This record gives sequence, C-alpha cells and structure tokens, in this order.
Amino acid sequence: MEEIKDECGVFGIYNNEEAAKITYLGLYALQHRGQESCGIASSDSNNLYFHKSLGLVNDVFKENTLSQLKGKNAIGHVRYSTAGETLLKNAQPLVADYYYGSIAVAHNGNITNARIIKDELEENGSIFSSTSDTEVVIHLIASSAEDLLIDRAINSLKRLKGAYSFLFLSEKEMIAARDPFGFRPLVMGRLNGSFVFASETCALDLINAEYIRDVKPGEVILVNGEGAKSFFPLRLEKNSNCVFELIYFSRPDSIFNGKSIYSLRIRMGKELAKESTPEADIVIPVPDSGVPAALGFSKGSGIDFEMGFTRNHYVGRTFIEPKKSIRHFGVKVKLNPVPDVIRGKKVVVVDDSVVRGTTSKKIVDMLKLAGAKEIHLRLSSPMVIAPCFYGIDTPVKEDLMAAKYTEKEINAQLGATTTRFLSIDGLRRAVGNGINFCEACFSNVYPQEINCESEYENQTQLKLFSKEVF
Amino acid sequence: MEEIKDECGVFGIYNNEEAAKITYLGLYALQHRGQESCGIASSDSNNLYFHKSLGLVNDVFKENTLSQLKGKNAIGHVRYSTAGETLLKNAQPLVADYYYGSIAVAHNGNITNARIIKDELEENGSIFSSTSDTEVVIHLIASSAEDLLIDRAINSLKRLKGAYSFLFLSEKEMIAARDPFGFRPLVMGRLNGSFVFASETCALDLINAEYIRDVKPGEVILVNGEGAKSFFPLRLEKNSNCVFELIYFSRPDSIFNGKSIYSLRIRMGKELAKESTPEADIVIPVPDSGVPAALGFSKGSGIDFEMGFTRNHYVGRTFIEPKKSIRHFGVKVKLNPVPDVIRGKKVVVVDDSVVRGTTSKKIVDMLKLAGAKEIHLRLSSPMVIAPCFYGIDTPVKEDLMAAKYTEKEINAQLGATTTRFLSIDGLRRAVGNGINFCEACFSNVYPQEINCESEYENQTQLKLFSKEVF
Amino acid sequence: MEEIKDECGVFGIYNNEEAAKITYLGLYALQHRGQESCGIASSDSNNLYFHKSLGLVNDVFKENTLSQLKGKNAIGHVRYSTAGETLLKNAQPLVADYYYGSIAVAHNGNITNARIIKDELEENGSIFSSTSDTEVVIHLIASSAEDLLIDRAINSLKRLKGAYSFLFLSEKEMIAARDPFGFRPLVMGRLNGSFVFASETCALDLINAEYIRDVKPGEVILVNGEGAKSFFPLRLEKNSNCVFELIYFSRPDSIFNGKSIYSLRIRMGKELAKESTPEADIVIPVPDSGVPAALGFSKGSGIDFEMGFTRNHYVGRTFIEPKKSIRHFGVKVKLNPVPDVIRGKKVVVVDDSVVRGTTSKKIVDMLKLAGAKEIHLRLSSPMVIAPCFYGIDTPVKEDLMAAKYTEKEINAQLGATTTRFLSIDGLRRAVGNGINFCEACFSNVYPQEINCESEYENQTQLKLFSKEVF
Amino acid sequence: MEEIKDECGVFGIYNNEEAAKITYLGLYALQHRGQESCGIASSDSNNLYFHKSLGLVNDVFKENTLSQLKGKNAIGHVRYSTAGETLLKNAQPLVADYYYGSIAVAHNGNITNARIIKDELEENGSIFSSTSDTEVVIHLIASSAEDLLIDRAINSLKRLKGAYSFLFLSEKEMIAARDPFGFRPLVMGRLNGSFVFASETCALDLINAEYIRDVKPGEVILVNGEGAKSFFPLRLEKNSNCVFELIYFSRPDSIFNGKSIYSLRIRMGKELAKESTPEADIVIPVPDSGVPAALGFSKGSGIDFEMGFTRNHYVGRTFIEPKKSIRHFGVKVKLNPVPDVIRGKKVVVVDDSVVRGTTSKKIVDMLKLAGAKEIHLRLSSPMVIAPCFYGIDTPVKEDLMAAKYTEKEINAQLGATTTRFLSIDGLRRAVGNGINFCEACFSNVYPQEINCESEYENQTQLKLFSKEVF
Repeated sequence: MEEIKDECGVFGIYNNEEAAKITYLGLYALQHRGQESCGIASSDSNNLYFHKSLGLVNDVFKENTLSQLKGKNAIGHVRYSTAGETLLKNAQPLVADYYYGSIAVAHNGNITNARIIKDELEENGSIFSSTSDTEVVIHLIASSAEDLLIDRAINSLKRLKGAYSFLFLSEKEMIAARDPFGFRPLVMGRLNGSFVFASETCALDLINAEYIRDVKPGEVILVNGEGAKSFFPLRLEKNSNCVFELIYFSRPDSIFNGKSIYSLRIRMGKELAKESTPEADIVIPVPDSGVPAALGFSKGSGIDFEMGFTRNHYVGRTFIEPKKSIRHFGVKVKLNPVPDVIRGKKVVVVDDSVVRGTTSKKIVDMLKLAGAKEIHLRLSSPMVIAPCFYGIDTPVKEDLMAAKYTEKEINAQLGATTTRFLSIDGLRRAVGNGINFCEACFSNVYPQEINCESEYENQTQLKLFSKEVF
Repeated sequence: MEEIKDECGVFGIYNNEEAAKITYLGLYALQHRGQESCGIASSDSNNLYFHKSLGLVNDVFKENTLSQLKGKNAIGHVRYSTAGETLLKNAQPLVADYYYGSIAVAHNGNITNARIIKDELEENGSIFSSTSDTEVVIHLIASSAEDLLIDRAINSLKRLKGAYSFLFLSEKEMIAARDPFGFRPLVMGRLNGSFVFASETCALDLINAEYIRDVKPGEVILVNGEGAKSFFPLRLEKNSNCVFELIYFSRPDSIFNGKSIYSLRIRMGKELAKESTPEADIVIPVPDSGVPAALGFSKGSGIDFEMGFTRNHYVGRTFIEPKKSIRHFGVKVKLNPVPDVIRGKKVVVVDDSVVRGTTSKKIVDMLKLAGAKEIHLRLSSPMVIAPCFYGIDTPVKEDLMAAKYTEKEINAQLGATTTRFLSIDGLRRAVGNGINFCEACFSNVYPQEINCESEYENQTQLKLFSKEVF
Repeated sequence: MEEIKDECGVFGIYNNEEAAKITYLGLYALQHRGQESCGIASSDSNNLYFHKSLGLVNDVFKENTLSQLKGKNAIGHVRYSTAGETLLKNAQPLVADYYYGSIAVAHNGNITNARIIKDELEENGSIFSSTSDTEVVIHLIASSAEDLLIDRAINSLKRLKGAYSFLFLSEKEMIAARDPFGFRPLVMGRLNGSFVFASETCALDLINAEYIRDVKPGEVILVNGEGAKSFFPLRLEKNSNCVFELIYFSRPDSIFNGKSIYSLRIRMGKELAKESTPEADIVIPVPDSGVPAALGFSKGSGIDFEMGFTRNHYVGRTFIEPKKSIRHFGVKVKLNPVPDVIRGKKVVVVDDSVVRGTTSKKIVDMLKLAGAKEIHLRLSSPMVIAPCFYGIDTPVKEDLMAAKYTEKEINAQLGATTTRFLSIDGLRRAVGNGINFCEACFSNVYPQEINCESEYENQTQLKLFSKEVF
Repeated sequence: MEEIKDECGVFGIYNNEEAAKITYLGLYALQHRGQESCGIASSDSNNLYFHKSLGLVNDVFKENTLSQLKGKNAIGHVRYSTAGETLLKNAQPLVADYYYGSIAVAHNGNITNARIIKDELEENGSIFSSTSDTEVVIHLIASSAEDLLIDRAINSLKRLKGAYSFLFLSEKEMIAARDPFGFRPLVMGRLNGSFVFASETCALDLINAEYIRDVKPGEVILVNGEGAKSFFPLRLEKNSNCVFELIYFSRPDSIFNGKSIYSLRIRMGKELAKESTPEADIVIPVPDSGVPAALGFSKGSGIDFEMGFTRNHYVGRTFIEPKKSIRHFGVKVKLNPVPDVIRGKKVVVVDDSVVRGTTSKKIVDMLKLAGAKEIHLRLSSPMVIAPCFYGIDTPVKEDLMAAKYTEKEINAQLGATTTRFLSIDGLRRAVGNGINFCEACFSNVYPQEINCESEYENQTQLKLFSKEVF
C-alpha cells in the first residue's frame, strides 16, 4: 500500500542526563511514521530549547544541535508529508511563550473541532502562526484560568473532539494525554530513573527502555519532580483504536495493547486465507508492509511463500524520469518482480489495502508482464469506503476506489484474476479480544459525531490564509 | 566604527506585477542595514505568501522562491545580527492569521513598552511564538474591536511607545506608519502606478522609483485599491530623528529629510576640523563609513587626504584564527594599513564614533606599528554616554567607554597622541536646520520616558523562555 | 552479512537520445553495488562530458546536470565505500585527454598487477592523479602505439592481471571488456536501437531493455556507428565467476549466466537444510540479504519461516550514539528482533556469511536477549578463510574469523547453540552446472598467481603518497 | 574597471607548526586575485595532503579540513573565474603521484608553449586529467631523468616559455620559481623560523611575516631541511613585470619591487593630471580600484576629490533581474552615484582602464542621469590594444575597444565630454626607475616570441576534449 501517507510519531523522556539524544534515538525508531519534518524541544527547569526542520531525523540533528538542547526533559515529533503543504511553520513540537512561561506540544492525531475553537479564539483576538490544528490547544492552555499546568491542560482537553496523543513539555513538567477513544497509540516506559513516552514500543526497544503499559484512552499523566500521576478527567468512550496501526502503520516489532503487530498481521493473513484461498502456486507479498500478512496467508492456505518482488531502498524524494516514459516506471523505481519466481505461476499477491487503486493496478500489470499465469490479489484489510478524520491522511471519498466500486468491479478495473478483501468479521477475528478498533473507514460510521461538511476539507489543516513558501 | 550593529531595513511595494522581485531588489539595496536574516511577504487579494530565512538577500531568494510569492503587493525586511540570539523565529516579516484574515508586519525600531503590553496580553491568554517586540502589535491588531484594518492598526499604534517604522500587509491593503518622534527613517516613492516605501532612498534609486517624500513622524498611510490616504491619529511629539542614521547607518547616497547623507558627513568632518585640527601631515579615514567625514576634515583643515587603510571585502561570518594569535588579527582581517602612507607621518585618523573602544584601540595600535609619528583620533560623533532604546543595539552603559571616561582618559587608554570628539553643537551645526535629532545617546536625556529598570535588559528582546537552537 | 562492503557497478548505453538520463536510471538500479560515489561520462562524437561526486545517484544527478551531459553515448559508475579512503579523485568514470582525444573508463574489479605496471609507467615518467588501480589502464591505452582505439585497448588489456569488467567511452566508440576468468559480471542488452551494458540484469529491467547475453569471459566488444563487434584477443582461462555475486552482492531479481539469483539463493538454503537441519521451531533470515536462503532453508527443512527481524531503512551514514552506550546499539540501529516471534523458540537464523564475526555475534546476542531458547546460526556460504584480490573489499587474513577458528570454535565465540556453514560441495550443488565459480576465498587457492606479498595491502588502492581531504 | 578578470594568487610556507592554517590566512589576503576556486596542499615528510574546491577561501576551508592538512609545509592557490569554464578539475594546487613520490604545484601565469609540450607528451603516451596549462610542468618533472627534485624542476622550467610564478611542494621540499621575465610577482618572507612565499606582500602583512625580498626573475629557490638555496639556471631576459599589477591587480597596501602600489597609483593619477586636466569642479573615482589614481589626479590638478559613487559590497555571484529591465541595472547593483555630489557639476571620473568599454559606457550614462554637467573620463592606464598571453584573461583583439578605435572615437562612443588615457611615457614616469614593465598590451610588442596563431585561442586553456559539468 503506497497511497496512504504515514501520520505522525511522538516521543518524550523525563529526567535523563541525555534527554535530547535519547529523544533523537526515539524519533529515529519512529521515522516510519513521518519523514517530512521533525523536531525536539527540551527543558532544564528554567527554559525550553527547541530545534525543528524539514528532513529526516538523522539529517536534521547533529551532535552540536543536540548538545544545545539542554536539560533533562525532552519531547520530539516526526511529521508526515502531504504534497505541497509541508511547511516549516507546521513542524512540531510547537513552542510558545505565555503567561506562565513556555510550553511545547507534540501531537499525533487530528482535532475535529479545531476549526470551531479557532473561530472562537480568533473572535476573541487570538492570532495563529501555523495552519496546524495543534496550535489551538496551546491557545486553550494559555487562556485557561487555572493555576496549575495540569489543570490548564485538562480544561483544554475537555474542549477537544477527535483524535490525539499529546505530549506537553513545560520548564519543569511533562504531560502525556490520549483521547477518550484511544484513536492513536501511546505507550509508557521506564529507562532507569526516567519516564518515557512513545507512539510505539519499538522506540522503547531501541533505547533499551522497559515497557510499562499503554497510556489508557482518556488518561492524562503528569510527570514532575515528584514522579508520575495518572488522571482520568475526561468522559470515557468506547475504545476505538485505529485499526490501520495494526494493518499498516506500526512497525511489526511493536507491541500494541499487549499484542504483537507482527503476529496480528500473520493472523490477518490466515483469516484472509480462510476466507478466500484460490488454487495457486505461490503467495508473494508487496514488500515491506505486506510481508507478514502474506506469510500468514501462506501458513493458512498451505501455498508456498516466495519473495516475488525486490524492493529498492535507495528511493529519494524526487526522481528524474526519462522523456519517453518507461512502462510502469513509477512503481518500478521501488519494486521489481523476480521473473524466475513469477513466470508461468498462479500467483497470490498480498497487500494491505486498496485506497486510490493506482498502485494496485501497477502491481497487477507488472506481474502480468513478468509472466504470471493468474493473479489473485488479496488485501489484508476490508474495503476502505470512507475517509479518516482521526489522523490519517486518506483521500476524499471520491478518490477512494472502494467507495465507488464493488469488489467485483475493482477486480475488473485492476485486471486481476480475482480480488478479495478481508471481511470486517475476519479482521475482528484476527485482532481478537481486548482490542476494540475504530471501523469508520470500513463502515462510514464514526465513533464520534463529525460536523462532516465543515470538517471534510479541513481535516488536517486549518484555513490557509497565509502560505509559507520554499 | 565596528561595534554598533546595524539595525533593520524595511521595504514595501503596492500594486506591481513584479512585487516580490522588486521587494527583493529593494532589500538588496538595504542590505547594509541587516545581514542576518531577511524575508518577504506578498499578497494577491486572497492570500498572503511568505518566505524568510537566515542569510543575505541574494542567498535566501532565488528565482523559484520569488515566483511563488504571488500577488501585486509585497513587504520585506532585513534584520541585524546579535551574537547567539539570531533566530529564525524572530525573522521578519512576522505573519499571522487572525479573525479577519492574515497580516504580515515588518518593523524597524524598538517598542519600549512591549514588555508591559505583552504581560497584559499574556494575562489575557495570548501566546507568543517569537521573542520579538514586534509580535505585540499583531496581537493588538487581532484583539482590536474595530472593523477596518486601518482602525485596528491605529488603535494598536496608540498603545505603543518607542520607535517604529512599520509596514503592514493584508490580503488587500498596505499600511505604513512611523512613530510620532520619527526615530527611524521611512520614505515614500512611486514607480509608475505603484506606491513604494523604504527605510532609505537608495532603495528607491536602485529600482528607478521616484522619491515623493518622507513619511512624517506620527503619520499613518493606508494604501489600497482606492489609492493612498494619510492619517495623523497620534499625538505629535518633538521630532527626534536618530542622528546615527546620519553619522553611520544610512548609505551615503541616501537622502534623509531632503538632505544628502554624504554631504552631511562631509560637513561633520568640516565641523570637526574647525573644532580640533592638530598639526598633521595627512588625514585618513577608517573605511568605509569614515570616508566622507575624513574628506570633510581634509577640506576643513587643508590637510592632505589619503586612503591609509585597505579594506578586505571578502570577510565571512566566521574566521579561523591561528593558535598563536597574530597581533591585532581580528582587525587586520578587515583592515590593513598602507605602510608607505603612514610611516613617519603625523596622522589624523577619522572614525565615526567610539562605543566599546576596542576597535579604536586596535586601529591606534596598527597605525603605531605601521610607523605613524603621531596619531590624532577624530570622531565625527559626540561621546556616546547612554544606550539607545529606539532600535540600535548599543551595549549597556558599563560597556560604553565614553560613559566611564573623559575625553582625556579615553585618549590615554587608546594610546593616541590626541583624541577629540565632535561636540554636540558642532554636530547640530553640521546637520543644520530642518532636522531635529534625538540626542539621548550623547545626553542621557530621552525624548520619551523610559521605564529604565525593566526595559534596560529587554530592549531588543522580550523574555526568553523558549530558545530556538541552530 | 554487514562486514563486506559492496564493490562497484557499471552501466553504459550507446546511441540513445537520452543516454545520460538512461545511464542515471541504470546506476540507480545498481545503487546496491556502491553508495559512496557515482559518476557519468557522455560523448557526442566531438567531446566527452562528465560529472561525478560523492553521494547517491539520486542526490548527485539533477535535471540540469543530466542535460549538460550531452550526446547519445554514456557510461556510468557507482563506487563502494571504504572508511576514510573514499576520495573524489578516485570516483569514476576516470576521464583523461591523450594523443587521440579523450577517454573515459568505468571499472568493476581489481587489477592485481596494477602496482607493477604503475611502477614501470612511473619509471617512464607517467604521473598519477588518483590512487585507483583503474588509472593504469588509461596510461596503457595512451602509450600504446596502435592507431585504433580497439587495438590500443586490446594491447592494454593483455598487460592486465586480475579482475575487470570495463566500459570505455571515447568521442565516437564504446568498448566493453571482461577479464578471461569472468570474475566480475557484465551483461549486454538492447533498448530499441541502442546497445546497453550493465553489471546486472536488474538495470536492464528498470529501463525496459531486453537482455541479450552475458559478455563472455575474455571478450572485448566494440560498439560504434557500424554496430557491435566481438573480439576474443585474450588467452582464455577457466571460468571463475565470483560466487559472492550469487551469495550476496547481486540483486535477487537479477539473472546471472541465465540463472535467477533468487532461485540460486533458495537452493543454497535448501542445500544448507540438507546438510544441517537442527530440531527447531522457526527459521528466520537476517534481512534483507538473508531472506531467500532462509526461505530455502524453510522449504528444505519443513521448519516454519518467520520474519524475526525488522529492518530500519532510514539508516544514514553516521549516527550519534548516546554516551552511555546502549547494548548492541550499532546493530539495533538497523535490525530489531520481533520479540513475539523469538521468545521461547528454538530459532534457526540464516545469514550469508561470517567475515569478521562482529555482526554475527551481535545478532546472536540480540536473539538471546529477545528470549530465544536455542539459536542455530546457519550460513549460506562456506567459511571465508582467505581475502579476495578480485574486487571485493574483504579484510586481511588476520581479521577473517574463519581463517583463525574452526566451525566449533566460531560457534563457541558467537555463543550460539550450533553454527554451521554450507559446504563447498553443497554450494556447488546449489549453483549447479554451467557456472564455474572462483573459490579462492573458501580454499585459499587463487585461479591466477598473485604476488601475495606486494599485493596484499594494495589490493584496492595503489600507494598513497598524496591524500585528498574532505 | 570591471572587465578584466583577476588572475591567480599563490602562497607557501615551509617549516611551520600551523602550515595549513597560515596558508589559509595567506590565501585569504590574496582573495582579490581569484574568487572562483581555491586549494591547499600540505606535506609532512611522508605524504602530501590536499583539499580544493570551488568557492571563497573562507567557505572552502573549515577548522576540521585544515586540521587534516597535516605537516609543517604547505602551498595554496586562489583561482580566477572564467564564465562556464571554471572546473574543479582545474582547481589548484594540482597534485600527482609519480616515480619519486608526490608533487603539488601552484601556478600564477600562463605557459605560452604548453600546447606544443602537451602535444609532445601526448605523442609519448602521457594522459591529461585537466585542461590547465599547469599540468604540463608536472609531466615534465615526472619524465625528467634527474635524481634530485631541484634538478628535475630546473630541467622542466628550461622547457617552458611564458609567464610563471610557481610553488612546488614535495614530501620534504618546497621550490619557488619565477620566469626569467618576471611577468608575475612573487615575494619571499620569513615568519620566525619559517620561509614564506606569496604573490603579494599583503599576505605577509596579515600573518606578521617579515618581507625579505622579491624572488628575482629567473630565480629558482629550493627550501628544505638545510635552509633555502637560490639558483639562476635560466637564461636571463629583460625584466618585464606586468604593469597591470601596478595599475589594477595588486592590493594598494602591497609593496612591489620595493615600491608601494598605493603610491604608484597616486603618481599615475598625478601624471594623468599633468597630461590632461580639464576645467572641472570635482574628481571622483570608480571605486574601489580607481580611488588612489583619482586622489593622485586631485592632488596633481588641485580639483576637489569626492566619493561620487557608493559601492554595494553585498554583490553575489548571480542576481535576479526584474523582467522589465531597470536602466543600467547591471552596474547599479554594484555602484550608485551620490546625486548631491554629481548634480550640476563638471566631473572628472577616474578609472584604471577601458577594456571592452561596456562598463565605462554605463558609468558615463549613470553620471549623466545623476545630473553631471560635464563628464571627463580619465584612465590611469594607456590604451589596451593587444591581448595578454602572460596570465591575464583579456578578451581577444576584436573585443578590445582601444584596438579598434582612437581615443576620440572612444570618447564619442562612451558619450563623455572628454576621454583621455595616460600615455605610456606618463606611465613610465609614474612607475619610475627600478621597474621595467611589460608593455605588450599597450604596444602589441611581446617580450618573447609568441606563436600567435596557435596560442591565441588557447592562452588559458589547453584543448577541451573532455568537459566537466556542474
């Protein structure tokens, strides 16, 4: 699946001599969640320090930058890319000064009522220097009448709808917060005497931190000199974890709510095999994300697993194409079929999902060209028929292939022999008990009322009066 | 004079097909007013576009950046450098979205009550994303109850104390404003059907614009589709133009209040000669800024003018020094005496001022080393005994040589044969009628009450809770 | 296998309107063969044009650079990295002017008698501006008495010992040559009316060129306006293809001598399973290179295949480590175990080879830490006991783990449960008929006499009198 | 004078703990002699180290680069720019390995028989990796049969015609050499126990080195562990110092053959005044190079000196022009008239020379536009009627204005009131005894026979078979 952009990743550590450096490592482990911009803010009881820039973690941060990010506390952020709109001014953490001092915030998610709150704030004279929905929460904190940061934060969170996993950093305190639905992931760990927060457990693993537990939906955790305190100030809702974290976003070595992402994907593949195993010679994945589901399909169906595609890992941001365009050039830059594996075979090819359908079409074409006898496309997710308002940058409904066509029509358009999606029930069986996931993108039923008309176009960005240019 | 940093320069053009490109040229002509960062914001009736970065105008803006700065209106800014504190977040124009749309502001000057206003705003919940005093004016505009931009701007300006030459840009309008004292310069011109504003006339000259007149102290000019309208909504004060624009900052080919900067400096040199011509063989300038005054001194005294120093124009931002430091290395990187001119001569060396005294000391030492028989240091400004709160980054009082020592003591410390400053009366004679300048730095008497204690340390920056790191 | 550096890749196209652009694409497909520097030289009958730089293909070449590389013929090169010694002056193609015009050369391999030839040339007054063994061949061509380029080239090749796949480009002609042993690969293809040469077929696939055949060992092919002519001027030797191309270097989707690399690796895994299948729960690869062999092992042994490691693909050139080093940090930056897969399991981990043994040790340690019950390390190559003088940058004998220790001792040092290498006979069975490979690194018996003493330290570089500094 | 490009500068120091750093400073002081590329080679008895790049000294060299340039000996080079042809491969010092070790060479000048020697060398099989005439001398040294470097160098120099000031560096020795005509400058100094060589004395001044004497025409100086030895192995010729060093190239604070450049220029201005003082109000220079001559003219004529032009020192390499071109934009970017000084005045404007005449035309136009009543152009050099083959990049004869027109016709074309060049006799008087200068560019009589036809087009570059692309 190439069409859905990654979203964001957050990381924070409290009370560590090398806070900025550890945060840099944590962000590096979360790099798959956002490659466009990244940033770190640190604090040393008196001040906040920050640096952010467009680029990968490893390019943006150097020894001398990290050494200037003083203090024992730090939060960081990696941000996804949306073509043409990736602006330095929207890079996170957002940092601002206000009455009580300074505050930095790193956010994974999407505030669905940001537009409404922003209108109110602007009516009262607030100015906005980014087009990010995240800026509203800083304004809310700044305009809160409460004395303590934790109270100001809680008051502000009560105003928000939508999806958020937040890390806040002040001079002396850190706050982690997760929306009552638990849309986006957030885990908590410990590294000797330091508290650690991260979007995924793979960030804990890299720094040898111990996983404590997931931050709970609706939970707000305050960390300061006296340790960590947990609050549940928000009305609890039905758990609605983003199922695409399980299907696609999270790294296979991460643990989500106690379950291994890798194993969940194996199970999705197995369920998919149960539902729709064709007569075939081999099962191949669309690498890298499709590998575990394809393995699961192989195990479930008994059909041999092969690595039918080679992936080129040196793909840069831009690529110069020859004038006389080479067939399927765009996909071939990243993926190339292994002819010996494909030729003359009945092939099951496993991918995670179909969004716009353009990549799937090219994959089917490439397999044909490589001599596949039959091509059975299997998707380890159900049909995506509705956009996400909770932090994933899916296209609008008109661009979602499955919103417009039936499974059969999709198969015809892609030119495959057969095309089958995992059923929602199959997905539920694969995920098993203990995880209640949000099915909005499959069912068009959203866990929380969305003011669809106004939010539709503004889901990831607020109004764009001023535009930064690069 | 090397110790006083340049300040800032602003430029704006309304209703021009190549607004961003013309602004780029205007900033280029004002580059001597600020070399650390620069930026341009443009508007096309619907949106604001902006780009700003650390660096020189010619490095920051390229053809493709300029082409993205759409629209027929633009304002720009060049900013000075203060070691360690030059931050991208403080680069101008500052741009923000608020209730009525977007606004950009470019500012030359220093708001002396910014701290107080900021405190009030923060108490009411405002957040600040820069440490620049300029941000307060955007907040004031945003929180104004008035309907029209011009009224919101005027309301806001009424709250400000201190020095400002402002250019505001909205989607459809441009506003130029100069504080009632006229501390910082601002001129108005016309380029065919376009209105132009600039800190100095040399920016008009480069683009072949016609000089109309100086924006008057306390004047607010609104430019929109209906043309330009002038307002005088502020209580007028006694004119207090910054005399250091005449002595040092402005380019010699600029016209200030109808008078040629070059000619004024020639007259300063002549007055200086009248007051204190020693018996000497030659007059030499400290280039480049000291050249006109030295020429004037030569004319006034009849002593031969020579270019006794060669200036190296390839000086970069940083310079690697040898370990075993070369004598006077820091100054020699920029200036080198011409031995043949100096050796065995009684030399009058003319510079603009003594601030910390460190550069003057090195100049005297270099002349001694080059074999000067006598060294008569002449300064084309009076003794600087007090810091500036109106936009020039002078050091605190303790670091001002003339605040601590008499002319005689200074001479002894510098090791010159004689050292003489232009008298305040001499300076007045040189400047002549028609320009009333601010003498605060010579007299310690400020035209407007300053809350000295609180402002002292915060003159150019607001409180520094959060620090951007590069 | 992380310790053996990639070597080099070459690409050339003759008679194509977009020669430079196609070469850029070809190099991109060969990027896995060298990431340190790259270059392209083109010709338009009258002149040669070239550009080369340190960096990846996609960073070094931009639209405007490619458009300046005029002409319908081009050759390109990607070069491997050896720490501290990667110099711009050694980047290829090497380009020189000489009596007959200009010549560019791209080389994959190692000339084992370069030192001796260089000494002779220097005695006769030649100067060398690189430390690359490749420069000697240009000198030989320049000093040849023959009139035609093809004769000069052949004369020069007759002097060379060792490994080479060469592409030469003059204003009007291209020459491809492969040493008589066929150490390094070189294939020939066709793209409409253009001739194409490349180190691997995957480069042909990306540009939709048709594979014709491998350039034969000892073959010299001249391409010019009259088409392509084949020559066999060199004494033929026993085929000695580099077996590590099959085991590790070549991309799995490439075809070597008519055989699929992917399938060969599957067979190596199967043979390995035949020889040494332990009682175990799962088989996991060290990604990405170990994947096919691990799959083959799984097929051969019937033990379940799992992706037990996640690979981070955002690894940059340098990485800032925390002061208090994290355990196994160096490997964890690239590879992370999937705990759920490993914990409590008897694990077969398949890698391609053990060179220094440092990475293998870390992999075993990481699996232990992840809770593996038993760790059975299986290598799809025999024990590497001798250095390569034919183009692979293996360490000196003292640093080769298998040169000093038995299989048992290696197992003990690595701390695995069992460690087993594929036997040479097993490797031969896997490779099958039709490919005679060089076994020097396994047997210490070299196909061609090497002047070991003098060549040992100079295998990849000539004497280093002058050192370029970056 | 803007049309003649600077040429080159060389610097060397032997036996200094900070050799590379001192060389960096020396090159910085010589930056006015070449802004396009620069390089340093150092040696530590065993090896040579080098770094070179396009760019200014201060951008190319950083602390960490300098620290890698080990050893107590170093030479450096700054190179001029010629549009489109400035190539990294031609950047100096050129460094090569040969039979006896390594050698680096830095060259200021032009070898007029380089083409002929290159042809011979190529016939004998030499290859060339640059298009610089300097490469031939390395080949000659490498192919010399002598045992000692000094003998090889002398043998090689005997083959050369034309202009050269050379610095050679081997592992243990340094050689300075100046052609028998003394076309290009080269001075020798001492810094404590270190020997120093430089193109101009201003480089000695910056590092506090003591000036010893000029290297004499035809002199070869060997510096090694035993000290410095002087040789005169070449047939001596009539001294023919480049007079344009005096008129234009050298920095005013440099001493040439014992005479101050500044004072020589003053005297040129005085002679010019003697020859052609019009009735006028003011004398103004074209800054910076015309300042001393204009001062001399003022002294000689008694007409008041004024700085009538302001120079913008922030000029970058490229400049974006507005579409509707501003009048005289190209010159205005660098120079702006001070209107108050010019308006209504009879102006003498002093420049160094007229080459193509394009800049002079713009200067006259700008003065007219600024309101000058009369414009008397005075040139402190005679008419340039013939190209230079000795190291200055003058245009071909057809592009030299004075080669095609009389003084009167030039005046008419430029549109000045009067235009007068200094006479050759006047120049001789100004220069005085003790300096015999080359007058080839004024007289078309060359001190050494030139094979005009073949050299004409190849004066600064050898044949361009291969072209590096940026």
